Amino acid sequence: MASDPGARRAEGRLTRKGVQTQQRIVAAAADLILQQGVAGTTLDDVRAEAGVSSSQIYHYFADKEALVRAVVDYRAQTVVGEIHEPMLAAIEGIDGLRAWRDKIVSIQDDAGCQGGCPLGSLGSELAELDHVARHNVAAGCSRWEAAIRACLQGMHDRGQLVPAADPAQLATAMLAALQGGLLLAQIERNTRPLAAALDVMISLTASLAPPAQSDDSAR
Amino acid sequence: MASDPGARRAEGRLTRKGVQTQQRIVAAAADLILQQGVAGTTLDDVRAEAGVSSSQIYHYFADKEALVRAVVDYRAQTVVGEIHEPMLAAIEGIDGLRAWRDKIVSIQDDAGCQGGCPLGSLGSELAELDHVARHNVAAGCSRWEAAIRACLQGMHDRGQLVPAADPAQLATAMLAALQGGLLLAQIERNTRPLAAALDVMISLTASLAPPAQSDDSAR
Repeated sequence: MASDPGARRAEGRLTRKGVQTQQRIVAAAADLILQQGVAGTTLDDVRAEAGVSSSQIYHYFADKEALVRAVVDYRAQTVVGEIHEPMLAAIEGIDGLRAWRDKIVSIQDDAGCQGGCPLGSLGSELAELDHVARHNVAAGCSRWEAAIRACLQGMHDRGQLVPAADPAQLATAMLAALQGGLLLAQIERNTRPLAAALDVMISLTASLAPPAQSDDSAR
Repeated sequence: MASDPGARRAEGRLTRKGVQTQQRIVAAAADLILQQGVAGTTLDDVRAEAGVSSSQIYHYFADKEALVRAVVDYRAQTVVGEIHEPMLAAIEGIDGLRAWRDKIVSIQDDAGCQGGCPLGSLGSELAELDHVARHNVAAGCSRWEAAIRACLQGMHDRGQLVPAADPAQLATAMLAALQGGLLLAQIERNTRPLAAALDVMISLTASLAPPAQSDDSAR
């Protein structure tokens, strides 16, 4: 939120309780926006959902735009920083990638495939309306891509992928498959396209193991 | 539009000029929605863009929802029916897939990566707001996937892919890579992720050629 003057207005003098209230407002807004989009969410909805007054919202956020930008930062932090970065950093090989895939599919199954990607769907809705928000979604996607790349680069460095494999290009394609799979699953209300897209990318990664490595993993 | 009573209300008695006016309204609405989203587009914007009166819009469409549903059908028809289906049907091998990829990237380059996928972005914005629209976007995506699958199945049938290749799964993953690539390109304002995602999927397809076929294509 450091780049967002609207959200920062009260920052210097926030008590611990103030920080908690501010975070509760952002989390409530994020939930509502995932369910009904940015345009379908009013500050009055957020007020009711967070159990705060209108003046409390305006104490922390200059306007809806400032709150939406705070939601973008919150989603980048929760989805990428708290879920995907630690999961991807812990992956040691192809089985770890498969567990990551299973977790992603299972989250969507639990959500009935509603809402799509909490970060990507913000990007789609805001890209042409708020260039600061678009830029911040792009920064979140860039972190996400870097985490996938580091995972694949680690496999490459450990000799689990052939030298000719390109972890950077593979990571970009993996994130695209993930984003496209999440969108198609949301539209179809079925994890089928998400699972297929990730399975193809993981099979491709598995096929890039050197022959000896394939033997190892088959033991 | 047959499934949409709101858009059909005047259908039985439209003159040729009436059909043209109706189509001009839908095309104007589709352009505006690509630039500024469904929520950011008012019927008044559409009226001004199409050069028609409010009463003309209400003559053809019961309300904004009916017009937006007509835009979904229009996008499914123009993007899938008029661009991708014929391109994919004409593809005879991996070089054709590469030309398809070049065309997709070039369209996004020309658009400055604005708007993303005209059909997929409607799906993202409408999925949680209008289940009829979501269903119609899903039908368009299903046609798109079927066209990619038929292209890959043709390559498979002609022996250009090894028997073990799975054209159906590959097609789902290809559409996901395309949708995710378009979204990431829109967010990043750069075709880099789109090109990388399609390149990886096409390299994968090329790697599924039987050895003799690879030699043929190298001639």
